[in-house]
Amino acid sequence: MKPFMNEDFLLQSETAKTLYHDYAAKMPIIDYHCHINPQEIAENRQFENITQVWLGGDHYKWRLIRANGADENEVTGSADDRVKFQRFAEALPRAIGNPLYHWTHLELKRYFGCDLPINADTAEEIWNLCNEKLKTPALSVRGIIEQSNVRAIATTDDPADSLIWHQKIKDDPTCKVTVVPAFRPDKAVNLEKPGFAEYIATLGKAADVSIQKIDDLYAALEKRIAFFDEMGCRASDHGLDYCVCRPDPENKADAIFQKALKGEKLTVEEVEIYKTALLGFFGRQYHKHGWVMQIHYNALRNNNTRMFERLGPDTGYDAIASYNCTAELMQFLNSLEVTGELPKMVLYSLNPNDNAALDAIAGTFQSPEIPGKIQHGSAWWFNDTLKGMEEQLRLSASIGVIGNFIGMLTDSRSFLSYTRHEYFRRLVCNIIGGWVENGEYPADMAYLGQMVQDISYNNTARFFGFDK
Amino acid sequence: MKPFMNEDFLLQSETAKTLYHDYAAKMPIIDYHCHINPQEIAENRQFENITQVWLGGDHYKWRLIRANGADENEVTGSADDRVKFQRFAEALPRAIGNPLYHWTHLELKRYFGCDLPINADTAEEIWNLCNEKLKTPALSVRGIIEQSNVRAIATTDDPADSLIWHQKIKDDPTCKVTVVPAFRPDKAVNLEKPGFAEYIATLGKAADVSIQKIDDLYAALEKRIAFFDEMGCRASDHGLDYCVCRPDPENKADAIFQKALKGEKLTVEEVEIYKTALLGFFGRQYHKHGWVMQIHYNALRNNNTRMFERLGPDTGYDAIASYNCTAELMQFLNSLEVTGELPKMVLYSLNPNDNAALDAIAGTFQSPEIPGKIQHGSAWWFNDTLKGMEEQLRLSASIGVIGNFIGMLTDSRSFLSYTRHEYFRRLVCNIIGGWVENGEYPADMAYLGQMVQDISYNNTARFFGFDK
Amino acid sequence: MKPFMNEDFLLQSETAKTLYHDYAAKMPIIDYHCHINPQEIAENRQFENITQVWLGGDHYKWRLIRANGADENEVTGSADDRVKFQRFAEALPRAIGNPLYHWTHLELKRYFGCDLPINADTAEEIWNLCNEKLKTPALSVRGIIEQSNVRAIATTDDPADSLIWHQKIKDDPTCKVTVVPAFRPDKAVNLEKPGFAEYIATLGKAADVSIQKIDDLYAALEKRIAFFDEMGCRASDHGLDYCVCRPDPENKADAIFQKALKGEKLTVEEVEIYKTALLGFFGRQYHKHGWVMQIHYNALRNNNTRMFERLGPDTGYDAIASYNCTAELMQFLNSLEVTGELPKMVLYSLNPNDNAALDAIAGTFQSPEIPGKIQHGSAWWFNDTLKGMEEQLRLSASIGVIGNFIGMLTDSRSFLSYTRHEYFRRLVCNIIGGWVENGEYPADMAYLGQMVQDISYNNTARFFGFDK
Repeated sequence: MKPFMNEDFLLQSETAKTLYHDYAAKMPIIDYHCHINPQEIAENRQFENITQVWLGGDHYKWRLIRANGADENEVTGSADDRVKFQRFAEALPRAIGNPLYHWTHLELKRYFGCDLPINADTAEEIWNLCNEKLKTPALSVRGIIEQSNVRAIATTDDPADSLIWHQKIKDDPTCKVTVVPAFRPDKAVNLEKPGFAEYIATLGKAADVSIQKIDDLYAALEKRIAFFDEMGCRASDHGLDYCVCRPDPENKADAIFQKALKGEKLTVEEVEIYKTALLGFFGRQYHKHGWVMQIHYNALRNNNTRMFERLGPDTGYDAIASYNCTAELMQFLNSLEVTGELPKMVLYSLNPNDNAALDAIAGTFQSPEIPGKIQHGSAWWFNDTLKGMEEQLRLSASIGVIGNFIGMLTDSRSFLSYTRHEYFRRLVCNIIGGWVENGEYPADMAYLGQMVQDISYNNTARFFGFDK
Repeated sequence: MKPFMNEDFLLQSETAKTLYHDYAAKMPIIDYHCHINPQEIAENRQFENITQVWLGGDHYKWRLIRANGADENEVTGSADDRVKFQRFAEALPRAIGNPLYHWTHLELKRYFGCDLPINADTAEEIWNLCNEKLKTPALSVRGIIEQSNVRAIATTDDPADSLIWHQKIKDDPTCKVTVVPAFRPDKAVNLEKPGFAEYIATLGKAADVSIQKIDDLYAALEKRIAFFDEMGCRASDHGLDYCVCRPDPENKADAIFQKALKGEKLTVEEVEIYKTALLGFFGRQYHKHGWVMQIHYNALRNNNTRMFERLGPDTGYDAIASYNCTAELMQFLNSLEVTGELPKMVLYSLNPNDNAALDAIAGTFQSPEIPGKIQHGSAWWFNDTLKGMEEQLRLSASIGVIGNFIGMLTDSRSFLSYTRHEYFRRLVCNIIGGWVENGEYPADMAYLGQMVQDISYNNTARFFGFDK
Repeated sequence: MKPFMNEDFLLQSETAKTLYHDYAAKMPIIDYHCHINPQEIAENRQFENITQVWLGGDHYKWRLIRANGADENEVTGSADDRVKFQRFAEALPRAIGNPLYHWTHLELKRYFGCDLPINADTAEEIWNLCNEKLKTPALSVRGIIEQSNVRAIATTDDPADSLIWHQKIKDDPTCKVTVVPAFRPDKAVNLEKPGFAEYIATLGKAADVSIQKIDDLYAALEKRIAFFDEMGCRASDHGLDYCVCRPDPENKADAIFQKALKGEKLTVEEVEIYKTALLGFFGRQYHKHGWVMQIHYNALRNNNTRMFERLGPDTGYDAIASYNCTAELMQFLNSLEVTGELPKMVLYSLNPNDNAALDAIAGTFQSPEIPGKIQHGSAWWFNDTLKGMEEQLRLSASIGVIGNFIGMLTDSRSFLSYTRHEYFRRLVCNIIGGWVENGEYPADMAYLGQMVQDISYNNTARFFGFDK
């Protein structure tokens, strides 16, 4: 029996151990997609207790605690932080086989040097130990980033955002990590959602453009893209319910946009025409700037109305949608490819049934610009598990060229999540090591070592241009 | 090489063996969903031969024998029982990797003490041996139930059923197992199917209510639910082709119901409005009574018209449907949650592509009432296989909290199927043991032993209220 | 660590090794579905270099090379064959986990006796060695077929084809392999595609029938089917975007056909009515002749318009479609079953999400004619990988009777692909061996050996009638 989460955690063969310890472990991290708050980097936030840093804003953990029957007051409510931690410590051991179990213990080991298993009995000792360590500079936001060997971070930002905290970080010579924004213009795309007209006004103000027509919108967005580009932005991100590709041969997009500004009701067809137009515009812009376009789809959000009204979005009431829209995604990519304006892309579906189709789509639009121009993004959210990552990696390897994969991102709201890169790298080394030990690939350690380093870091740096 | 199906069958590690033999094996069984006939318990039926008990009514085995090329006469027809058994014995060894192979041999070992592999050559010996044993009290229906350590059984019953056999069992002090009905009102929901008006008349008679309007129907159903509740019912079951959630803001349900009673043709929209109304009514009723609502969907039934006309339903001509209706299921749950009337639920889809979505839905409606209030039910029918169960368990563990899972049911028409609980428990112990041995979870045997006992029995007892 | 691809490649247990080496390896091959050119067999083509034989027409490899960032000129363009081979040798090692890695090395070992791993450094040596061997008679087309122990080959042919090369092969007593056509009437089915009327004219000419009405079309097709039958044809193949079953109670098919001949625009409904009628006609014909009907669906073809205009179809720009049409497939089979005219079938979907549904459909239409009358075909195209084959085999075994499976086909355009049968057989033996070693099946080697021989060859010979 292997000891619990020791140095060879997840590494089931000698080749896997060598690949991880001698090659993958030492590589820096580029966290190219996350939801951390740049203000906390600029201000180098110091956390008060382990509940703040572990449970604050983390809807994965909230779901876990609720699923164990906790009262909401002791999850997100007014209960004491110590009580909330207790509920978490009670729930976690029930979640055997859940990545939260591993994530949490990896974080406890790496950042707090504590090897205790978390449960109802150890909670008090862990609470005290962690809170003590949280007072040290090593566990300030920047301390965490530095000890995690993070080279670059891309946050997620609205086009109207001033990027003031990014500017402060840039201006601060003591901050050693590269922090850049990523461009997420969902509010400009989702014209059917409440608050659209207000948002367009805000965007116009940020761009210093009076937006009346769709061409004004394009002009405003172009200015913001140029500004983001100056601020070091290398990627955008789009959260779509489902992928659309409804061409607009009669040029209706402007009229639809103006209807939306007036708050008029739109048909599904109109919504899709507008969105297709906007996404095409964005694709061409990103291609021009050499940015990466990320598309996330098939999330079914805010499904529990009672809790949405109480807690708002991103609080643990989301699920997996089942839209069959890979054909539309393919058509959208092709519409950009025909004019030679297809940007680099990373495609993520929350529904694992889309995995094979996404691997096949990626292989359909390759280019000498860069190996692996269209990427099937790392297993997302409900799939960001040992099982989900392993199945996706094996499938992508079966259908495509895994040696060119850009690998892991945290997608996290927490600064302690960098151990997810370790988790991923261990898994990659274990899979590859397993193939080698089973006689499926030659034991050429130099070549294999290079490959796991590429998947851990080099491919990512090259893909996003952080190697420049 | 491990011997064929010895005491460590499916247990691939020492931890797995300890968890199974020292913890899981001894737990009683609650078979919370099955299709056995309560009359056979009341009358303590004794079977005449092994074909009767193994092949009678078992469409899983019929499919197997047909797939090996047998003539229907020797499957369900007038051929001699010995011949039918021979066809089965010839087909079974071809079905390597099929759970029928394991189920049948487990039953042969546990109930008949016979370790022979079943094949064309051993058939005669097994036929004689089993038929001899079938004469003993240990292999009467109650004998089987007792030696299987079954604590409680829930059958599947129509709302109009008199439950006379349940009453007889209750009245019989020699019957030690708890046998309760489960409420399956499909015929009241499926207004588009032939015989609907006749069924409603039957139901009205059973409830002593003249059903003219939908409110009469509700009144009749309420009375039957109260009666079932008195008879110990703890759960309902709904077999839906696909999940619906079509709200009825204009209150059309009553008019639709009356059209159906008159045999008028209904639109799909009308059918869905009525079904949504009925299912909402049922959900609220079940919540009131603390019952569990089971939903089974995505079965595609009676697909071979020629054989349906010859043999009727449930004879082995069903398959897997592919309705993409998890969004509607989510909306239906939310519609009950907003008014605080969401009952405990168990969700089953026959299409394994729905598994991840169902795990995510379950996590969206938790409650302090009980840990794991919404359950993703154990792998159903075509998925009730080693592969199907293992993949679903690993997925549910990845996305939710497997320690709160209510585990296995037989869903069977046969009294010999209780070994499926053994099969499931061995698999659970093997998966958990594997995680522990691979260093993914601490080797805390007391905690782990409790967890496998919870999944085997305690969670189920608590969820359905059999612990009271 | 196992050596790289040695004699026990993929065989992880002693039972697996025995099953493969003592039973499966020696069986001949029936390649019942492929895309090789019969002219090359008739003329016994000798290839000039390894790029011709490995990279010519192989869009799997083209995708791989493109995905590694190669310029199209060095993939399918005017670049030198040696340069193209270099690009391939550079890309291949990046594709760890991809079946191309194994297929290519198996071919290098078996046909060229070379154990070198292919990479940028070894490319020159391999190029020279292979080109030398390609001059020998052993590596002529017939030499390859003979040393591969191929007993029978079914090509893929249009109904209008003269089958002149098949006739030449039949007339050549020196050609020892049985080569028969397979009937692929897609052009007669796809009335919505450009060139339909022209094709019908061509078909009419081939059949010596003036085709004005749908009955003429049927008459022409009947004549061609009879001709193919005389030429030894045992199977048809249909490539459908998605499965249809739209009955034609008003007998519109003829009018629709005539509209199509005139180039008039058709509705989706009309297209589906016509296709359903044609497919029903074909099914009845195949049943009459005892042919096997193959259905391939859910391919999404020619998705990169820019490259399609440059290179045409079948050049590596296809992907996986996601049509939910298993219910229609079921209805189509039932429509033939009701009149007793359902032919033997092999069903293939390119979307692996359909696998469970297809296994269940197969089990719904069995018959005493032959065990396993409806087959779920071997993992196709993007799924024809270790992972894809293994998952499908395990699933088919779980749901059906894997002992009656007809097994592997190459589906290839290359004469070197016969090693895919070896790859498949090794995998089958490994899975079955694993079950036995894990105590899930008795270690009855004679029975198991017979079963792997059946899956490797005997079932196929019987199913297609090559045993007569």
